[in-house]
Amino acid sequence: MTRTIALLTDFGLRDTYVGVMKAVMRRICPTVDFIDISHTVQPQNVREAALALMTAYAYFPPGTVFLVVVDPGVGTERRLIAAAAGDYCFVAPDNGVLTYVLASEPGYKAVELAHPDYRLQPVSQTFHGRDILAPAAAHLAAGVPPEEFGPAVDALQMLSLPQLSIDDDLICGEVIHIDHFGNIVTSIGEMSWLDETHLRLTPRFHRAATSIHFTASLAVVTIGSERITGIARTYGEVGQGDRLALIGSSGFLELAVNQGNCAAQLNAAVGDRVELRIT
Amino acid sequence: MTRTIALLTDFGLRDTYVGVMKAVMRRICPTVDFIDISHTVQPQNVREAALALMTAYAYFPPGTVFLVVVDPGVGTERRLIAAAAGDYCFVAPDNGVLTYVLASEPGYKAVELAHPDYRLQPVSQTFHGRDILAPAAAHLAAGVPPEEFGPAVDALQMLSLPQLSIDDDLICGEVIHIDHFGNIVTSIGEMSWLDETHLRLTPRFHRAATSIHFTASLAVVTIGSERITGIARTYGEVGQGDRLALIGSSGFLELAVNQGNCAAQLNAAVGDRVELRIT
Amino acid sequence: MTRTIALLTDFGLRDTYVGVMKAVMRRICPTVDFIDISHTVQPQNVREAALALMTAYAYFPPGTVFLVVVDPGVGTERRLIAAAAGDYCFVAPDNGVLTYVLASEPGYKAVELAHPDYRLQPVSQTFHGRDILAPAAAHLAAGVPPEEFGPAVDALQMLSLPQLSIDDDLICGEVIHIDHFGNIVTSIGEMSWLDETHLRLTPRFHRAATSIHFTASLAVVTIGSERITGIARTYGEVGQGDRLALIGSSGFLELAVNQGNCAAQLNAAVGDRVELRIT
Repeated sequence: MTRTIALLTDFGLRDTYVGVMKAVMRRICPTVDFIDISHTVQPQNVREAALALMTAYAYFPPGTVFLVVVDPGVGTERRLIAAAAGDYCFVAPDNGVLTYVLASEPGYKAVELAHPDYRLQPVSQTFHGRDILAPAAAHLAAGVPPEEFGPAVDALQMLSLPQLSIDDDLICGEVIHIDHFGNIVTSIGEMSWLDETHLRLTPRFHRAATSIHFTASLAVVTIGSERITGIARTYGEVGQGDRLALIGSSGFLELAVNQGNCAAQLNAAVGDRVELRIT
Repeated sequence: MTRTIALLTDFGLRDTYVGVMKAVMRRICPTVDFIDISHTVQPQNVREAALALMTAYAYFPPGTVFLVVVDPGVGTERRLIAAAAGDYCFVAPDNGVLTYVLASEPGYKAVELAHPDYRLQPVSQTFHGRDILAPAAAHLAAGVPPEEFGPAVDALQMLSLPQLSIDDDLICGEVIHIDHFGNIVTSIGEMSWLDETHLRLTPRFHRAATSIHFTASLAVVTIGSERITGIARTYGEVGQGDRLALIGSSGFLELAVNQGNCAAQLNAAVGDRVELRIT
Repeated sequence: MTRTIALLTDFGLRDTYVGVMKAVMRRICPTVDFIDISHTVQPQNVREAALALMTAYAYFPPGTVFLVVVDPGVGTERRLIAAAAGDYCFVAPDNGVLTYVLASEPGYKAVELAHPDYRLQPVSQTFHGRDILAPAAAHLAAGVPPEEFGPAVDALQMLSLPQLSIDDDLICGEVIHIDHFGNIVTSIGEMSWLDETHLRLTPRFHRAATSIHFTASLAVVTIGSERITGIARTYGEVGQGDRLALIGSSGFLELAVNQGNCAAQLNAAVGDRVELRIT
């Protein structure tokens, strides 16, 4: 049976690192197929990787193994883990990169990658992606059960959730991602309007909630000195070059320019404060 | 049987969009294999994508499904279509991106992607690549016949052909692409010399016509204030760092620098006028 | 049986060139799978490609065919070759790009790619990657023996080895690569300390030698006006933002900044002189 391994790293596309990890995995499990999520996470930016993984994982076939290598602590005491959650398995450093996935997959089980037989020997001090994580992903794809790799791990490292506060008719969040088109993705998700509990970052929810739509008279979005009235359904509702707010394909409030680059126009950056006022 | 899906988008390589589309397709059709044509088409540049597709498609195995997502009109009334043409199937927005392929594949049949069963539900307003186009490509690869997806479509949107005029011994065209090496690709194809009808942009023709060769005494190419005499066979016919004109691998007149970047040296851009005088 | 073809080119990721080569290969050998090593080698930089290939190849499954297209001499008299070496086969221009691989795989056999039946006809003058090299790689993956492609070739073009001299307790080398993270990779490999013969660039050796460790009191590394004392095991041994020297994952001395970009800080470039003094 063909199993998919999905890769998410900060290795970039210039070096041989990604190709070498795939080679190592193909050697261990010849029938494996790869899907690249991204290799251009900003170097060592664990939170960016965690958000990208949260956005993408639920679309993959059941049985997919996710290999996540954003690892500023390589060679130090941080653990390397495999976590079985829902229909999937995740291999990563224990640095919080699985936070948002595991928040929406209750009942996960994690183990430490300790068994020397499932490593490439000798293990280098600087490329555990190649020597420990990729081999583990390939052995998992080949059918080795997680408990074979090492002892159970209870308390994983977790990142804080993105900024989000709800106060009567004012929701305050932050920019969590700027995409290739210059669309500004914020931490304000539709869930916040449904139950006023804190943001639950589950793609399933986002997909279920896409029927919500705010009319122009109900909502005002503010970022810096920019003010956008109303939440549109799609980019083409405004003129070419005009700004708009809308619910993006992952269920978060986005600011965009129809056929233009909103982040460049507003000089926006990850972490910038965003407000949504519903009147 | 393994079927190939070829992808051409303007999604870039930073975000999760391409990986998510592949995940959706792998889930629908587990045996599918992917070949990336490019994901770095300039955002919303339909014509650039149309030319890239024209250059590439005829090299793929019969039965390949092409998934083309350059979609400035996402969420508006523009149709999404599947077109069967020659040995291939194309899934794309009906915005002209198939113009140059269909011009060389007479007898194509197109349908609108209307059937809800072949979509990811619920359908978002901003990512039809994920929710409609990728599922359609995967179902086509899995063997669903095109007519299952929706009603036949007659008049597809078509782009204009690139500029090209022929007047006695003067051919005027334009820059249609600047490649990674800085080679300047023009709209002047060999066909124009063969029958003096308008350019027919078929790779088959380009491959058949590669025996044509103009000697230095016959041709002068002009772009801006730059003037190149003669058409070379290959880059190495001139010294390292020297400029030359030649017939590129897709059958179009190119301007290049042997082991250098011609476009950077001449500050050339897509749309610039190019003249070829045959004396 | 699925065979892997590994690709290493300077074609970049914007154009259709890589996708077209994969299409050609998939058409010839439908069961082939691809692993990209890199497509962003600096244009025409044969030595960069040769070093990347040396770093990566030994991790691939036995039987892998490597397609290497960095070809400044395309269309000129330079030969195109296939070389069987160890468990692998390499298809490339005869321009030295296989130098470091073949140095560590004694007993290789090379043939010239001369047989017209294994080419895409007609052959262009500017894209031998598509018309000669990719078809040869696919036919090799499909089981055609190398000797079918053309006559044996004896003396391949070879590049010089990177600078490295050993003089008592002073080792002088040069920067051979700067990676995506800004880590500075030098020509000083561990082998030089073991037997004081010239650098043998074999990944097997590098992997075997990773047990060596120099303490701070033993080694001083100098590049430009920068001086680093001691050789660390891993990035995290120094504070965030601090510089260090260590043995990288391919067995070469590297200069790095913990979670920072060393090359940018030191304005380092390939070819810069590096000294290691052992006291």
